[in-house]
Amino acid sequence: MYQIDLNSDMGESFGAYSIGNDDEIIKYVTTANVACGWHGGDPMVMDKVVKKAAERKVAVGAHPGYPDLMGFGRRKMVLKPSEVKNYIKYQVGALMAFTASYGMKLQHVAPHGALGNLCQYDRDVSRAICEAVYEIDPSIRVFYCAGAVLGDEAEKMGLEALSEIFADRAYMDDLSLVPRGMDGAMITDEDEAIRRCVKMIKEGKVTSVSGKELDIKGDTLCVHGDGAKALAFVRRIRDAFEAEGIQINNFMGGRS
Amino acid sequence: MYQIDLNSDMGESFGAYSIGNDDEIIKYVTTANVACGWHGGDPMVMDKVVKKAAERKVAVGAHPGYPDLMGFGRRKMVLKPSEVKNYIKYQVGALMAFTASYGMKLQHVAPHGALGNLCQYDRDVSRAICEAVYEIDPSIRVFYCAGAVLGDEAEKMGLEALSEIFADRAYMDDLSLVPRGMDGAMITDEDEAIRRCVKMIKEGKVTSVSGKELDIKGDTLCVHGDGAKALAFVRRIRDAFEAEGIQINNFMGGRS
Amino acid sequence: MYQIDLNSDMGESFGAYSIGNDDEIIKYVTTANVACGWHGGDPMVMDKVVKKAAERKVAVGAHPGYPDLMGFGRRKMVLKPSEVKNYIKYQVGALMAFTASYGMKLQHVAPHGALGNLCQYDRDVSRAICEAVYEIDPSIRVFYCAGAVLGDEAEKMGLEALSEIFADRAYMDDLSLVPRGMDGAMITDEDEAIRRCVKMIKEGKVTSVSGKELDIKGDTLCVHGDGAKALAFVRRIRDAFEAEGIQINNFMGGRS
Amino acid sequence: MYQIDLNSDMGESFGAYSIGNDDEIIKYVTTANVACGWHGGDPMVMDKVVKKAAERKVAVGAHPGYPDLMGFGRRKMVLKPSEVKNYIKYQVGALMAFTASYGMKLQHVAPHGALGNLCQYDRDVSRAICEAVYEIDPSIRVFYCAGAVLGDEAEKMGLEALSEIFADRAYMDDLSLVPRGMDGAMITDEDEAIRRCVKMIKEGKVTSVSGKELDIKGDTLCVHGDGAKALAFVRRIRDAFEAEGIQINNFMGGRS
Repeated sequence: MYQIDLNSDMGESFGAYSIGNDDEIIKYVTTANVACGWHGGDPMVMDKVVKKAAERKVAVGAHPGYPDLMGFGRRKMVLKPSEVKNYIKYQVGALMAFTASYGMKLQHVAPHGALGNLCQYDRDVSRAICEAVYEIDPSIRVFYCAGAVLGDEAEKMGLEALSEIFADRAYMDDLSLVPRGMDGAMITDEDEAIRRCVKMIKEGKVTSVSGKELDIKGDTLCVHGDGAKALAFVRRIRDAFEAEGIQINNFMGGRS
Repeated sequence: MYQIDLNSDMGESFGAYSIGNDDEIIKYVTTANVACGWHGGDPMVMDKVVKKAAERKVAVGAHPGYPDLMGFGRRKMVLKPSEVKNYIKYQVGALMAFTASYGMKLQHVAPHGALGNLCQYDRDVSRAICEAVYEIDPSIRVFYCAGAVLGDEAEKMGLEALSEIFADRAYMDDLSLVPRGMDGAMITDEDEAIRRCVKMIKEGKVTSVSGKELDIKGDTLCVHGDGAKALAFVRRIRDAFEAEGIQINNFMGGRS
Repeated sequence: MYQIDLNSDMGESFGAYSIGNDDEIIKYVTTANVACGWHGGDPMVMDKVVKKAAERKVAVGAHPGYPDLMGFGRRKMVLKPSEVKNYIKYQVGALMAFTASYGMKLQHVAPHGALGNLCQYDRDVSRAICEAVYEIDPSIRVFYCAGAVLGDEAEKMGLEALSEIFADRAYMDDLSLVPRGMDGAMITDEDEAIRRCVKMIKEGKVTSVSGKELDIKGDTLCVHGDGAKALAFVRRIRDAFEAEGIQINNFMGGRS
Repeated sequence: MYQIDLNSDMGESFGAYSIGNDDEIIKYVTTANVACGWHGGDPMVMDKVVKKAAERKVAVGAHPGYPDLMGFGRRKMVLKPSEVKNYIKYQVGALMAFTASYGMKLQHVAPHGALGNLCQYDRDVSRAICEAVYEIDPSIRVFYCAGAVLGDEAEKMGLEALSEIFADRAYMDDLSLVPRGMDGAMITDEDEAIRRCVKMIKEGKVTSVSGKELDIKGDTLCVHGDGAKALAFVRRIRDAFEAEGIQINNFMGGRS
């Protein structure tokens, strides 16, 4: 039997500022990556999204980022590994106060934005993130983008590493995502996107932008909730998976 | 047998900025109140101070404050109780990532600065703080200034409340501290300060600034490490307590 | 001939976060109150809104607030007058770099949120704001809510003080706004709102919530651009003013 | 006749945190590079240092940095040129509110930390900084480290560019500073440091770490005030310059 987790980034609103569509997308996913107050999110927002996740049995993971609210964590900062490690600890711990409050265990850590992008190839940063997770609680999982060295480093450290795949993004030959600016970066045809997802999950294969057939592992699929079209697409994905016999559940036993 | 805990605020440095004298004062206390990155402190600082506390078996508590680094948390902000509650959760959780990393349990929460001052009389704010602590983990203790309603609210909620006393401060008739600006606010005579401490601990009494004999409960004594004179005074206090048969230990079984 | 300035708060977006509807409302106003990066706004946003204002000959004023992005400057902070003064200077100066870049002179300063509310009755805070403005450039004007002591303090200091009125808000007998929570706080009937505006401008009178006829001075009318309904209302106001012979222009000679 | 300006970074304290030794070093310099509240500094600090500079006729320049207080602006952030430009404008404008208040003209802009380091070779960042300065006021000067492309870009834009040299640092063959970690990075012998300064100023030459004789232009010499030793060294430099007939003055006509 085939299985997949559906995750979405949530809790990225801040104070009077609202971003994303947490209230809707949470109805369709099995896992929430919750921002931890640095690149986005604040304690009020974190409380609200974790509460909702608890009510719907959606698993909660931490989505920590750079200390750069003005840049939404999307701008690379050159940090020492020790800084990355302690910054991750801080943010993960902050979120765990909210999961603890609602009787939940933190499922995983998934680095955000430019910090997440670094984990594709930077072993020092990846190791720093894994050390942070391991020292807090070695049973917390790590989400990594399929092909990223973060997955390798997590496993070396004895952490459970879960591979994230994307429905709407094309892959380079090394499994990195085709950068957003480049031709063909986005899979805009919804039928093709769904076929690619099913193939990644059932066959463990994806066709790269150059036409190569690559091995890929897909434990969790990233979806978005911003806009009516995005939500409609998530519903289509869910229907397609049901038709294909792909069960949707997270890693805490939550099913959707 | 008489007992007292010696606590000091620590971990209030930030980035390139250094404040306080953590490396010295930690040698003389049984408990560290560690700043959580809002009014002061950052993840690098928190890691360093918690590591040192673990090495010396000094208990660690959270010292959360307002989101006001520029004002060092000393300026009153008018927040809703729900904001106070979630802000406390965030900061306490962030620190718990570091205590967990060093195999320690968080001993207590002690609100900082203007937020702490509010707890003298504001029951809504006090209750919000206690709810935050209770929901994270009801075995975490609460430090309150002797006489503050925070102690009362903590006990109503079933939390262990520990009363903090001061060697260098005079008390009003309602056990609030004489404001720093006022005449007689500081006990500057060291011998008198030590006599007052011993009396508070052994007899549970203190003489107010108006001359009244007040009941006071002293579970933990606040000391400071900034300056050679402050450190010398802490050493004198320790010697005096030993001579008086007052044992110095925290609430986690740590002795000093 | 009657005149009124139409102003709106703008430039309150921050980084990836968008708030308000600057692109639309700027078409209908003669003055923009631009956030200065503390309660909202950032340098990219400031540049964008000042550029647009310059293109449309909309006058620019500074809309400085508390250092509280998380609370959008709506939560009272207890600051010293010297802190208010220097915080205002900082924010006003920051905005003036952008007005200078586009060859504009800063028209005025209008304090935001909880800081603005304080100016209704707090003379120390009001004076601190006026000193900041005066020391930077005594030809910069001050916007104050009709009835606020800020206007009085500005005039005492020799600054030009301009009285702001509201179309959608009811007034207490002392000209303070009826607090949002209270019954009758908002003027929801658009025809009535417009009649009240015309009366304030042409007769210098307003009927308070208790039915009293009060003197009021209206130099600038605050309008909002969030939502299609708000924009439609601004268009109605403009048409009504034209029909009533009330000319819409700012204090820099800009007409709309 | 030979001339040199003596500059020092100042105003980098923040809130309750103190860094540097502004009160002493300001007695020995002709120019203050004042932090603008992002990597360090706050409006209270800025007011205090600009006031003191005005009293002593020390020229004031802006010392803007990355939005990274936690890293003191020393960590590279990957920003777009438009972001650099507007961030510089914001900070420079903020400081100009204080210089205007004390009747001073802003002398120059000198980028701080990792942003300043980028200006050694990054033309896009350098141009962005120069555009910011030019658009605010083309009579504001730019300080650049001798050899940096920032100087070239400033001149291309028609700004007056002033070359900064260092008494205590060794130079590579391309005039970049020998990185702090490397052998021979610091000139620790005070006599040699002074001889090097005099030669740079009078002959326009410096010997690189590899022994090459390089052309160098020295308009302003950077000195430090942290520590008694640093202050004593500044006094020695001043005496040596007097003996060598090198006049110490800034670019606003201020003499010291």
